[in-house]
Formats: sequence, C-alpha cells, structure tokens
Amino acid sequence: MDILKGGVTAPEGFFATGVACGLKKDGRKDLAIVCSEDSAAVAGVFTTNKVKGHSLQLTMEHVKTGYANAIVINSGNANACVGEQGYEDALRIATVTSGLLDCEPDDILVASTGVIGERLNMDAIVPALEELVSNMGPDGGKYAAEAIMTTDTVPKEIAVELELQDTKVVIGGMAKGSGMIHPNMATMIGIITTDANISRKLLDKALKTVVSSTFNRVTVDGDTSVCDMVVIFANGMAENPGIINEGEDYENFVKGLEYVCTYLSRLIAGDGEGATKLVEVVVEGAGKQDDAYKAACAVAKSPLVKTMMFGNDVNWGRIMTAVGYSGAEFDPAFVDIYIGDMLVCKAGGAVDFDETDARRLLEKREVRLLIKLNRGIYADRVWTCDLSDDYVKINASYRT
Amino acid sequence: MDILKGGVTAPEGFFATGVACGLKKDGRKDLAIVCSEDSAAVAGVFTTNKVKGHSLQLTMEHVKTGYANAIVINSGNANACVGEQGYEDALRIATVTSGLLDCEPDDILVASTGVIGERLNMDAIVPALEELVSNMGPDGGKYAAEAIMTTDTVPKEIAVELELQDTKVVIGGMAKGSGMIHPNMATMIGIITTDANISRKLLDKALKTVVSSTFNRVTVDGDTSVCDMVVIFANGMAENPGIINEGEDYENFVKGLEYVCTYLSRLIAGDGEGATKLVEVVVEGAGKQDDAYKAACAVAKSPLVKTMMFGNDVNWGRIMTAVGYSGAEFDPAFVDIYIGDMLVCKAGGAVDFDETDARRLLEKREVRLLIKLNRGIYADRVWTCDLSDDYVKINASYRT
Repeated sequence: MDILKGGVTAPEGFFATGVACGLKKDGRKDLAIVCSEDSAAVAGVFTTNKVKGHSLQLTMEHVKTGYANAIVINSGNANACVGEQGYEDALRIATVTSGLLDCEPDDILVASTGVIGERLNMDAIVPALEELVSNMGPDGGKYAAEAIMTTDTVPKEIAVELELQDTKVVIGGMAKGSGMIHPNMATMIGIITTDANISRKLLDKALKTVVSSTFNRVTVDGDTSVCDMVVIFANGMAENPGIINEGEDYENFVKGLEYVCTYLSRLIAGDGEGATKLVEVVVEGAGKQDDAYKAACAVAKSPLVKTMMFGNDVNWGRIMTAVGYSGAEFDPAFVDIYIGDMLVCKAGGAVDFDETDARRLLEKREVRLLIKLNRGIYADRVWTCDLSDDYVKINASYRT
Repeated sequence: MDILKGGVTAPEGFFATGVACGLKKDGRKDLAIVCSEDSAAVAGVFTTNKVKGHSLQLTMEHVKTGYANAIVINSGNANACVGEQGYEDALRIATVTSGLLDCEPDDILVASTGVIGERLNMDAIVPALEELVSNMGPDGGKYAAEAIMTTDTVPKEIAVELELQDTKVVIGGMAKGSGMIHPNMATMIGIITTDANISRKLLDKALKTVVSSTFNRVTVDGDTSVCDMVVIFANGMAENPGIINEGEDYENFVKGLEYVCTYLSRLIAGDGEGATKLVEVVVEGAGKQDDAYKAACAVAKSPLVKTMMFGNDVNWGRIMTAVGYSGAEFDPAFVDIYIGDMLVCKAGGAVDFDETDARRLLEKREVRLLIKLNRGIYADRVWTCDLSDDYVKINASYRT
C-alpha cells in the first residue's frame, strides 16, 4: 500500500472543488462538491442522534437506491431544527445540482454542518451551485476539504493506492471535525471515494466494519452531532474485475479503507477543538469486548483526564476513577496503567516512577494511555484529545 | 420551618472543628471532626464507582452497625488506590479517635478527599487527632466545613429548625464539592446531623429518598469520584417521642432534610470548579421517569451546553442535540425549549426571540433551562454549572 498525495480526487474519475458562497461570515470557503464521473455505488453511516439534520435525512433517503453521482456539502449552517423547510431546502440543492450534472435529484447527496436552528441561506447557495459544478476538477479535493471545515484548524485528507485483483486501486478521503464529536455510529462528516469496482453490498459492509473501529472510536467532547455522516462512493473506474465475494481481495480493500479512515480519525481527534495533543486510550485484558469499549470511552471522555493531559500532570488516579465509573466489569486490584511505556500504577496501586520522565511523555504531541484490566482477552482503543482553555473559548461564543 | 445560622453543630449535642495538620501544602485547614455527644443512629450512601477509596470502604463497614459517634474527614488526600495500607491507615484514624472519645473503633467513620494514589501522611494526621478532639465545640461546624474544602471556593453549610411531634428539631449539614461530581449515588462528601429521635430504618429511608432527588441530581463534570459519600447522624437529643412509623411526622422530617440537601446540592453545583453560574436543567413531559432523567442529565453534562452557558450564547441547538443523544424516547417535532421563561424553540424548530433579552437571561447568576418533551407526565431536574476556562486551569495542574 502506498500513500498518495491528495484526497477525494486521487481515485480515477472523481472531481471536486470548494467555493465561498457567503455562509461563513469571514469569507472562507463554505460549499463543496465531490462528484463521480459515472454513477457510483454508495454506502453511508449516519448519526444515532434522535434529532437528525434535514440534509442528513435527505441523504439517508437517497443512499437507499445504492447509487449516487455527487455530494454537496455546506459548512456554517447545520440545516437542522428549522422545520419542514429544512428538508425542502436540501431537496432544492439536490434538484438544482442534478440539473447541472444531468442526473436525477436522488443521485445527489447533501450534507450540512454548522449552527443548528437557522435556515440555510438559499439565496447564497443556489447561485453558487453552478460555480461549484463548473469549477470542479480532478485536483479539486483540497478545496473541498477546506470548504467543509468549521472549527477545524487544518484540512483533513488522505489517499492510498493498493493492488487489488492485479489492478491499481485508489481510496481517497476527507473529513471535518472538530467539536460535537463522539462515537455513536458516525461522528463527523467524512467523504471517502474509490475507483475500486466492488459490489454495493460489500461496499456497505466494508464501510460499517471500518467505521466502527475508526470514526466511531473518536471522542472530542462526548457530544454526538445531529449532522454526522460518513459516505463512500465507489465508481469502479480502476476497472479491476470486481470484488463480489468476501476473501483476500475484499480483505485488502478493507485494509486500505481502514488506513484511510484511521488516518482521518486520528487527525480529527488531534485537531479537536482547542486540542494540543492526540491521546490514544487503549484498554487491554477485558473480560468482554463491551467492557473494553466502556472503559476506554470513559477515560477518553473524562474532563478530568483530558485537563490533566493538557496540563501534563501525571494524575493517574483520574484514569483509574474513570475506569471505575465506566460500567465495565473489572477488579481494581488487578489494574495496571501505563503512560506511554511507563508503568505508573501496578495492581491498582501507586508505583514509584520518575515524575520528570512521565511529564516528558505527556508533553508529546501524541500520548498513549494503556490500561490493562488483566481479566480477559478483549481490547479496544479510542482516540481523543486534551481539554484546554481554548476549547472553552471556542465554544463559549461559537454562534455569535 | 426556619433557617438557622450554622451547620452540623446547630442541632443539639453535636460538636465539631477543623484544624490544619499539613496535608494541604498552603497551610489551610485539612482535618475535620463531627461528633455526637451520645451514640447516634447513622445512615449513609456511597459512591457507585467500582474503585472505592480506603476510608470510604472502612466507613461502609462501620455504618453497618447502624450507630456511630463521630466522623473524621481529611482533605488534600483521597486515601485511594494505595493498596492494603490505605485501609489500615483509615482504621488507625478510627482507632486513635475512638481512644480519645472513649468508644469503639467501629463507632468512628472516616472520610478522605483529595489526590488519589498517594499514601496518607499519618505522621501529620495522628498527632493532630488529639488537637481535633480537644478543640471541638458546639460552634465548631464552620471550622469543619472549611477543613473539608478542596477546590471549593466557599464553605457550604446550612441548618433548619422544624416542629416534629410538638418538639423543636434541628437538621444541620455541610458539604464539599466541587469537581469530579456526577450523580451516581452520592456525589461528594456531605455530612448531615440532626437531634431528631428517629428510627435507624426510617433515617436510612429518608436519606436515600432525599439524596436521589438532591445530591444525586448534581453534575459538574460527569466524573463520579471514588470517595463520595453522604452520611447522616441522628442523636435523638431533641427528645421528640420518636419517629418510628411513616406518616406526617416522617414526611415533615423528610421535608426538612430535603431542604438541607437541596440547599447544599445547589451550592455544590453553583460552586463547581470554575463555575460562574448555577444552571438548573428541567425536563417535563417525558413518557417515562427514566427518559426525563436521561434527557436532563445529557443536557447538564454536555460540554457544549456548558460552554455556551459560560459565553451567554443562546445556542439552543446544542440543548436539542444533547436531548437527541441522551437515549430518551421523544419526538423532536414536539420539543419546546425555554431559557428562563423565554421560549427559544417551539415544536422542534426555531422561533423568533429577542437575542438581547435572551442573553440577559443567560447572564444571571442562576439560569433555568426548561425542555418540554410534550409526550407524557414525567419530569426531572438536574443542577449543574457552566464550563469556563477556569475549570481547565484548575484541573490542568491539580496535583502539582
């Protein structure tokens, strides 16, 4: 597997771009399109929040056909909680775009991210759709990745090339975070493209498998947004014979997809609102898979663990405490805790460690916390970030 | 019911004090005692965290007899996760104190709050116990309330007088917050005293009833500590004939206890780490009691709601989002949201409201958020605080 430059337009037959249509007050790009030359097989995972954004609802409908040509994404406004008008607005975006692309409205997906409860400024969006379609190109992925950013500080994209069925196949992706991020079936907006020829059914299965161990293992603040989705387009233009059964080819495709989604997930966690570092929380030795997940999640979500990571303070008692209230089955007397590769708690109790060395481990841009429950064979892993005063600053006046 | 000055020493026959023995680095008081002249009936509720502090474990054992004479509380060190030595240290505190008070070790309760994973400095505590016992007095409640503070900014105490069985009865209490606070059976340290004559069984029932609607409805950061407990002592010295059956007298006692616990709970929430305001989250119209609880809890815990409260930003979409992922059953299209008495979301959608007026409501020292699910008859209420940059500052270097 080789890492390529670029993102969603790295695979054959994908075009994209991003423009500024005026939804963001500061003139930054806020409208993106990702388009396949041919109709592509699609699959998606969507937020589990009972409140669902209107654009997301439309996309949930449109992916049901199994095929689509393009997705239009706006940032700056979530198109959520505005009543029936919200769905009509999303449908209008799909309809206008389908006219420009000469396909049907249900071949177009729509995603929106930003403030909840305000109507989309359709007077800004609709005229910009034509510009969007006419500007899109085979190198436009980076502009699309910029246009979907909200409080993200960096655009997030990646592409890999792998050999499948003796054919070079490319998988590309882009994503945006970086607040209201919590694992509960899709956690943000992620768009994945591939020129692989793969059946709709296996594409769906691959996406769900990979999302559960990647995008759904990211938490920034424990808040599951109403607009989160990950969508994958596969247009088959690599012209591999076709992946229609599980087996080695399918597994290789999943590996490539996992690389792309892992990369984007880690970027999202590390670029969490106000974050100064990426924190990887690993739980090993759980008696059940669910216990490993619960424990890792509780540690990754704990504001006290997250502020301690920000302050580089080796307060491992907070990690133990979070495992304790996680709901996971375990015996505190068997727990070992590592910061990086340094043991700081053995069999549930304090061990002597060098405070300066431990602090130095915490000061890194990426920190791994390992909790061994020493009870069974199950493990899980969640990515998060530290909690800084900048998180508060960013979110205290997001809307105004 | 009359509000009295003072706290745990307001009821007849209670003595208390607090001293500085050197556990806190800055010379503030860190060791407290609350003592009943006679053996008192006791009841307690304890953290649900699977990890339990050693002092807390000892106290869980000692309340089983149903009677106790005193409780010794230290701040600055949680006496948790230090191995078997932790229990032995707690037992030694109980043994030395029982010698000074001429009772049995299991008549003494012990509570510890502070940093996890470091052994108690017994060389500081043991000699100070004699000073503690010789200094305690009938007006010493305020010193005890000071000595149990950790990151609290104000001591928390209250007392009420009520008439029960034609007798004046007093209930007093003190508590400490203010981080690692989340409702899950006992949320911090609360010590309640009363001179009422009430059976052990009804005392236990009254405490559990009241704690579930007061201390267990406070969340500061969603972290359930390993040392949290609420303990009540009833010494009968008011000489009312005795509450031995449920009925009007019992109900009146519960009302008095509820007043005391509500007052202390609200103080804890409003004095949450870094808090600038108390936030009361009320959910009405749920189809089930549990749905009301889940929805109120999710809103009260959401970092995005809490930062918006800090920034006085009327971003009600975050409230809707939190209800959406709470797990509560509801239909978004029926939800109304109020800030104070101002409607900001009607039937799941935006309504026009005066931004300046809404902002003014948020700027108050106490803010009420009301979410009407309009589905059934159940309601719940949780107290929390806003999330400020000071929370991060306090917790980034708590230990160092």
